Amino acid sequence: MDKDEIKILLNEVKENKINVEEALKKLEDLPFKDLGFAKIDNHREIRVGYPEVIYCAGKTVAQVRDIVKFMLTKNNNILGTRATEEMFNAVKEICLEAEYNELGKTITVRKKEQQITDSYIAIVAAGTSDLPVVEEAYETAKILGNKVVKVIDVGVAGIHRLFAKLDIIRGAKVVIVVAGMEGALASVIGGLVNKPVIAVPTSVGYGANFGGISALLSMLNSCASGVSVVNIDNGFGAAYNASIINKL
Amino acid sequence: MDKDEIKILLNEVKENKINVEEALKKLEDLPFKDLGFAKIDNHREIRVGYPEVIYCAGKTVAQVRDIVKFMLTKNNNILGTRATEEMFNAVKEICLEAEYNELGKTITVRKKEQQITDSYIAIVAAGTSDLPVVEEAYETAKILGNKVVKVIDVGVAGIHRLFAKLDIIRGAKVVIVVAGMEGALASVIGGLVNKPVIAVPTSVGYGANFGGISALLSMLNSCASGVSVVNIDNGFGAAYNASIINKL
Amino acid sequence: MDKDEIKILLNEVKENKINVEEALKKLEDLPFKDLGFAKIDNHREIRVGYPEVIYCAGKTVAQVRDIVKFMLTKNNNILGTRATEEMFNAVKEICLEAEYNELGKTITVRKKEQQITDSYIAIVAAGTSDLPVVEEAYETAKILGNKVVKVIDVGVAGIHRLFAKLDIIRGAKVVIVVAGMEGALASVIGGLVNKPVIAVPTSVGYGANFGGISALLSMLNSCASGVSVVNIDNGFGAAYNASIINKL
Amino acid sequence: MDKDEIKILLNEVKENKINVEEALKKLEDLPFKDLGFAKIDNHREIRVGYPEVIYCAGKTVAQVRDIVKFMLTKNNNILGTRATEEMFNAVKEICLEAEYNELGKTITVRKKEQQITDSYIAIVAAGTSDLPVVEEAYETAKILGNKVVKVIDVGVAGIHRLFAKLDIIRGAKVVIVVAGMEGALASVIGGLVNKPVIAVPTSVGYGANFGGISALLSMLNSCASGVSVVNIDNGFGAAYNASIINKL
Amino acid sequence: MDKDEIKILLNEVKENKINVEEALKKLEDLPFKDLGFAKIDNHREIRVGYPEVIYCAGKTVAQVRDIVKFMLTKNNNILGTRATEEMFNAVKEICLEAEYNELGKTITVRKKEQQITDSYIAIVAAGTSDLPVVEEAYETAKILGNKVVKVIDVGVAGIHRLFAKLDIIRGAKVVIVVAGMEGALASVIGGLVNKPVIAVPTSVGYGANFGGISALLSMLNSCASGVSVVNIDNGFGAAYNASIINKL
Amino acid sequence: MDKDEIKILLNEVKENKINVEEALKKLEDLPFKDLGFAKIDNHREIRVGYPEVIYCAGKTVAQVRDIVKFMLTKNNNILGTRATEEMFNAVKEICLEAEYNELGKTITVRKKEQQITDSYIAIVAAGTSDLPVVEEAYETAKILGNKVVKVIDVGVAGIHRLFAKLDIIRGAKVVIVVAGMEGALASVIGGLVNKPVIAVPTSVGYGANFGGISALLSMLNSCASGVSVVNIDNGFGAAYNASIINKL
Amino acid sequence: MDKDEIKILLNEVKENKINVEEALKKLEDLPFKDLGFAKIDNHREIRVGYPEVIYCAGKTVAQVRDIVKFMLTKNNNILGTRATEEMFNAVKEICLEAEYNELGKTITVRKKEQQITDSYIAIVAAGTSDLPVVEEAYETAKILGNKVVKVIDVGVAGIHRLFAKLDIIRGAKVVIVVAGMEGALASVIGGLVNKPVIAVPTSVGYGANFGGISALLSMLNSCASGVSVVNIDNGFGAAYNASIINKL
Amino acid sequence: MDKDEIKILLNEVKENKINVEEALKKLEDLPFKDLGFAKIDNHREIRVGYPEVIYCAGKTVAQVRDIVKFMLTKNNNILGTRATEEMFNAVKEICLEAEYNELGKTITVRKKEQQITDSYIAIVAAGTSDLPVVEEAYETAKILGNKVVKVIDVGVAGIHRLFAKLDIIRGAKVVIVVAGMEGALASVIGGLVNKPVIAVPTSVGYGANFGGISALLSMLNSCASGVSVVNIDNGFGAAYNASIINKL
Repeated sequence: MDKDEIKILLNEVKENKINVEEALKKLEDLPFKDLGFAKIDNHREIRVGYPEVIYCAGKTVAQVRDIVKFMLTKNNNILGTRATEEMFNAVKEICLEAEYNELGKTITVRKKEQQITDSYIAIVAAGTSDLPVVEEAYETAKILGNKVVKVIDVGVAGIHRLFAKLDIIRGAKVVIVVAGMEGALASVIGGLVNKPVIAVPTSVGYGANFGGISALLSMLNSCASGVSVVNIDNGFGAAYNASIINKL
Repeated sequence: MDKDEIKILLNEVKENKINVEEALKKLEDLPFKDLGFAKIDNHREIRVGYPEVIYCAGKTVAQVRDIVKFMLTKNNNILGTRATEEMFNAVKEICLEAEYNELGKTITVRKKEQQITDSYIAIVAAGTSDLPVVEEAYETAKILGNKVVKVIDVGVAGIHRLFAKLDIIRGAKVVIVVAGMEGALASVIGGLVNKPVIAVPTSVGYGANFGGISALLSMLNSCASGVSVVNIDNGFGAAYNASIINKL
Repeated sequence: MDKDEIKILLNEVKENKINVEEALKKLEDLPFKDLGFAKIDNHREIRVGYPEVIYCAGKTVAQVRDIVKFMLTKNNNILGTRATEEMFNAVKEICLEAEYNELGKTITVRKKEQQITDSYIAIVAAGTSDLPVVEEAYETAKILGNKVVKVIDVGVAGIHRLFAKLDIIRGAKVVIVVAGMEGALASVIGGLVNKPVIAVPTSVGYGANFGGISALLSMLNSCASGVSVVNIDNGFGAAYNASIINKL
Repeated sequence: MDKDEIKILLNEVKENKINVEEALKKLEDLPFKDLGFAKIDNHREIRVGYPEVIYCAGKTVAQVRDIVKFMLTKNNNILGTRATEEMFNAVKEICLEAEYNELGKTITVRKKEQQITDSYIAIVAAGTSDLPVVEEAYETAKILGNKVVKVIDVGVAGIHRLFAKLDIIRGAKVVIVVAGMEGALASVIGGLVNKPVIAVPTSVGYGANFGGISALLSMLNSCASGVSVVNIDNGFGAAYNASIINKL
Repeated sequence: MDKDEIKILLNEVKENKINVEEALKKLEDLPFKDLGFAKIDNHREIRVGYPEVIYCAGKTVAQVRDIVKFMLTKNNNILGTRATEEMFNAVKEICLEAEYNELGKTITVRKKEQQITDSYIAIVAAGTSDLPVVEEAYETAKILGNKVVKVIDVGVAGIHRLFAKLDIIRGAKVVIVVAGMEGALASVIGGLVNKPVIAVPTSVGYGANFGGISALLSMLNSCASGVSVVNIDNGFGAAYNASIINKL
Repeated sequence: MDKDEIKILLNEVKENKINVEEALKKLEDLPFKDLGFAKIDNHREIRVGYPEVIYCAGKTVAQVRDIVKFMLTKNNNILGTRATEEMFNAVKEICLEAEYNELGKTITVRKKEQQITDSYIAIVAAGTSDLPVVEEAYETAKILGNKVVKVIDVGVAGIHRLFAKLDIIRGAKVVIVVAGMEGALASVIGGLVNKPVIAVPTSVGYGANFGGISALLSMLNSCASGVSVVNIDNGFGAAYNASIINKL
Repeated sequence: MDKDEIKILLNEVKENKINVEEALKKLEDLPFKDLGFAKIDNHREIRVGYPEVIYCAGKTVAQVRDIVKFMLTKNNNILGTRATEEMFNAVKEICLEAEYNELGKTITVRKKEQQITDSYIAIVAAGTSDLPVVEEAYETAKILGNKVVKVIDVGVAGIHRLFAKLDIIRGAKVVIVVAGMEGALASVIGGLVNKPVIAVPTSVGYGANFGGISALLSMLNSCASGVSVVNIDNGFGAAYNASIINKL
Repeated sequence: MDKDEIKILLNEVKENKINVEEALKKLEDLPFKDLGFAKIDNHREIRVGYPEVIYCAGKTVAQVRDIVKFMLTKNNNILGTRATEEMFNAVKEICLEAEYNELGKTITVRKKEQQITDSYIAIVAAGTSDLPVVEEAYETAKILGNKVVKVIDVGVAGIHRLFAKLDIIRGAKVVIVVAGMEGALASVIGGLVNKPVIAVPTSVGYGANFGGISALLSMLNSCASGVSVVNIDNGFGAAYNASIINKL
């Protein structure tokens, strides 16, 4: 709708050829609808129970507390990731419902009831050292309203353990695979299930692991076709992504 | 075959309702069924129209032709990726229906009718130089039975072009973003849509692009939460992954 | 301006409290001004003599020729970078004015008169092997309407050669330094001039040069404070950037 | 002193208008002047209000205090970057005017009045975690005599926030973009403004961020043409560079 | 249990020599046996004196203690690698026999007698700084039941020291070479012995050593043919591998 | 000649049982014998049927032919690796028995009968694209006198194929695992067999495979304990190593 | 020309012993002399027989020929490195004395007699594949006037070959060690001689050799103390450096 | 001990001038002498004042003290590098003459008079942050018996400071250049002096400096021909190397 069209419309209003309500309708979504910014801006809030998210790393304790304080005014659920225990204590003081997952380093505040999905996300992890990433993913998926099942310590070095849990993994709508070291678990599971697999390389390991590069490259080069990858140790991103898919 | 079924079988043996040879036959393939290997083995074929896939790179023309020849006996659809024109010509000789996508370097053979999805996959690309990857993804998604929409040349350097196509992108059930250079498109789209975004870094660029590392790292570090990543130039993997999601 | 305000405005139009022209003015820049897209879209074309740019690498000869063909309809100047001689020949057939810089791999077409700047850009290069990048930068800066001076073969291994040209370099409004190998020239010049220095690392060298990484890292770590860096071999980007600064 | 001036001097010697000692004195610092070394040496001091700069990292508290002590004798303004609080306290003891920016880790001492520019530098940052780099850039730009505007938390994941501030960004003479993670903000802004953009990758992020490499490569490969890059976390360098451009 | 054994079992059922419940019990773990999973699962325990292994890094003190507690119930020998002194103290409290190797960071518990091999593993190390890795390998090889000989401080910079010990090295059935810095020792020994050489790069060194990459690449590129490599600092892996070979 | 033998010799000198010249002769080659240089020098030749090895890459056709010509005079078996077909043709002209493995790029000449081992080496490969490395390993292992079994196309994406061949793999005395892409096969097999596993990463793959780095890192970080690694695509080295172990 | 000389000159002017024009001429090149630039500029030519050097890589055949043509006018010796045979042929046409080293890719032209050093440079190489680098170093050292001895094929995998040549190596005044793959030779020789060792890593190898990085890192991390390193394949640089030392 | 000496010895045995035990003792270290190992072994001690060297990093305080204790028995001079203050204190207790260089982290013990060279080593450094490496090099060069001159803070960003010291630098027999950041100083000096230049990259810098890689690559790629490089921060290695050259 360009200048001339608007002029014509305004003249039609003036001349009563069109009533105000109709003109309004034509004009009202002009600024945003065309670009869709309103949707962007609000797409989180308009869903019941969607949390506000704070990435706490690199913030001071005071900053985290203040952000939570402000968020509490909106009465939403809140998820803080990469939070230290000190941050949690500061939040706890202003919000008794706050909970802390020590391994996952998450703060969660539940203000609204959430509708939980029927289908579930399976979080599968190679070893117990991957638990911090598993827990971050778990807390994220939960507060986003998903049913979640954890399957831990099924690394490929003892592949029979994995097979024992295969039915649970196959029952999920989307699978998160968390693995460090050589990250082979993603490929093996990718070859065994017919669901989207989101692979999270972890920095677990040493030496030529290079802080997770080894698992990252493994997963990117997976010979199994349904595997996509998120950043090293990014349990949050995997769960957020899985949640979108689980709710499709 | 579970515990109860084995018990029944053993009782039948005991009561001479079934002879030992027959019982043996029923038991001997037990290990695979219980572990679900039959499912694995067959999970592709049991779906109508699922193609057989050949990764042609690193194979000789003769090898590709022979594999296709064998696959034709199974009457399935066929997808060959990273195929040279010479490979295509060899395949064409034994299979007139074979088609070649020159940019995408794919050979496709359609033997079976496919049921096409209602929902669609959007393949969004930053520049025309990313077209080879786009076309590989396109052909893959099509032969897997998906409705696909391509949105090309909407790189972030002229972001208004992207906004003009936002409705089409948002209408998709899953979005594939193909971008080289700095790969910023994945983050921008990830912030604008509420669907799973599968990012494909391409090797398009030069210098500090390092054959796609630049875009790969960008996408892995995306500040937008719904983005997952596949290997550099891996249009096939992105489309395969998107297809699984699109059919959920 | 929200829904209610627009309604009030429309009512004022209807009731003749405000005339159409005034209402139009209030409405007209609504969609774009807020976001500025019109400016984006047109900011290149509205300047006299600004060229259309084609990055030819990764495009076919036919694609390049077709893009040029289309551009010629708009009667603008044209710059094609990373163009092969074959591409140039194809362009030459449809456009006699087309010129080719063999070293710089640029195609230029001049359709419009350009206003040339008074101040100049100095392009300083370490060695003769850096000439392809120098020429790309030179052609870019010229067609963008800049006065340009080239100072070649003044690498730091024979620093007296550099000092002999120092006055010319210092006379520029902005300096482009092109250097491969260890890229030390950028730091040395950065310490000698008080103008913005745009450093272009080149892939000239071998071994631990790693295709330009050596010079790139050198320049990024320059101990001289006025140096910024563009991608390896990116003569175009440096010149484009320099042109913006030269015209401030 | 050029050829003609030397000739005049020699004639004055010949004609006894000047004695040999005086002529000798005038000639003996010739080498430096001709090569411009004096200019180099003094080019900072001859501008009113230009600060002395100390890079404090890797220095001891005592060293920093002693350098400041010496600088104070010259009555210039002083900027210390990467300074710890302990360093500041030591400086504070000998200089009451010293100020400390905790986030930016800068010490500033203002001894001289500065003339502030009319045009301004915009410092745009993706997230709050980039603030330390923003503040280093801010303090540097300020003490170099620039008008500065900060635009924070406009990362591409919520691109509408960026558009809301576009006019401010476009009003600047030069734009500094500070971003970590995937650094996409530089490309997006580079496509939206027609001013020189100096991109500062930050080490904000984790995993495949590799201490800022991800953002660095992104920015070097920016598909937008007016972007140049400085070292990771180098707020000082960006501001110094921007200041030179802002004062052109 | 193979086909013939199942047939015999079924006949016993038929002939009432065994009742259904007993037969069921024998059959129900069939799937694993046939695939060899039982072997995997149990292959450690069935060998006298084979230890249980705990990789302690990334586990809490409590977790390590609890795992040991559980393992003690099985009366096996135990090896904990990458264990801190604090972990050892916690283990010591529940198990007096526990021993700690301070350099090697290993906890060992000996509950069963081990049969020691006649042939021996030689662990050869370049310098005293490589001792932590040597000790980890040593403790691992010992608790796996191997005779082990250590040859320390025979780096190539003083090659005569190596030659003085050549007979001992050549007498081994398998040789572990531990070296940091440039890791040249592996190649030199690989050229002097006719036994399998397992090379362990260590992170000993600085600068361009890059945490062991230098030695790792050296060893992977060894011009001597009998050398294979394990992860940086992976003394455990080398010893485990050597033990398998030593017991062939 | 050890200490005691020298003592005896000296006594013989003393007692005139041997004259000084003879004693001198016996002593003068002492340094080499004691240090085992003679052994080194000859340790290959003294074993029946051990081949001479030529690494042909980087040599001219003439050089390869001349080296073979010389080797033929010693009547040994010969193995040439990384040989082009042109090299083979040149060798064929001077040696009719020469054979060429096109995939493995090996030239073999059999002059001597070899004693073949009873135990066998299993060469297991993930995909058909890994065949060149498999064949290099196969030809090397064969000419070194080993019984060899190849198990191809058992990649982890279809893990049931691997299980079908597990008995063959487990029957080997040493296992070579050849895999590109993410190299997960090494870990999976490492967890399933109790034999030394020598992993060969291949450069098969693309993008973030980085010419085999992905598989290399995977294998070095294998969570299975009996895995050691050789250089990328180093089929020769793996087989040489396996041969030493197979003959222990 | 120092202070005293200028004083004398000025007095001569004053006393009319020399006219102003002559004095001016003597003074005008003063800046360069004092700073030693003349020395720099001419330091090569003033030594008898020092060659002019052309780095031919990245130059066209015509450029190389033209540079040689110009150099011939100065009657100096000439060294062209990284020259193709085509370049040589073009040079040969204008200069019959030109010689070409096919392996070393050098063009040499001898116009002047050279004084050859008494002491010699030893060039020691690990394998025959390193010969191109050896020859580049050899030709460079020769035309710079050095006595040179080559010791080839003494890699550490057969260390007795090295010992057989140790006296020759120890007799040199400076040793160049050329080695690819793991580059261990530099450390071994560094530990055996008491002379400066200049190590040249070569790109010989494959896989994790990464084009010479493996040998480069090895050499930089050498545990032997007298080793310094030049760029990968930089035979010229090593020889130039060795020549300076050999002539001290 | 050569052939003639052995002959004499044998004759002495024969003639009972020496008994068998004594002869045996003289012979038993023969192997080493003949191969020149004695020279290696002892080549340090036989020179007056040559120090014993301890690389203290990665050693415990007790280990360092014990090594020094043992060395003191040999009455040599001692150099400990990378020593902590705690180590020094422990050494001081057993050796009052021990001195500590806090910046250089060296312990030196002077037991023997050293003959100091006439020619000197110049250690040139870019910035004050490079001082720790300068001091390590300085202490090493001194205790090795060299005259040493330090030239500090002459980085290329203010190149006139370098020229002011050029005569001192040119007067040296060998030049050590210590520089971090972009390491350009090595190239500039390499172009200005005609002496061997040993470049030491330092880890001084941040961001894309990558712990010294930036300077390392710069120096390896130096366009000046007489530059060789040692490991990052390896002041000891540079000085050791320079000392060998200085004493030629």
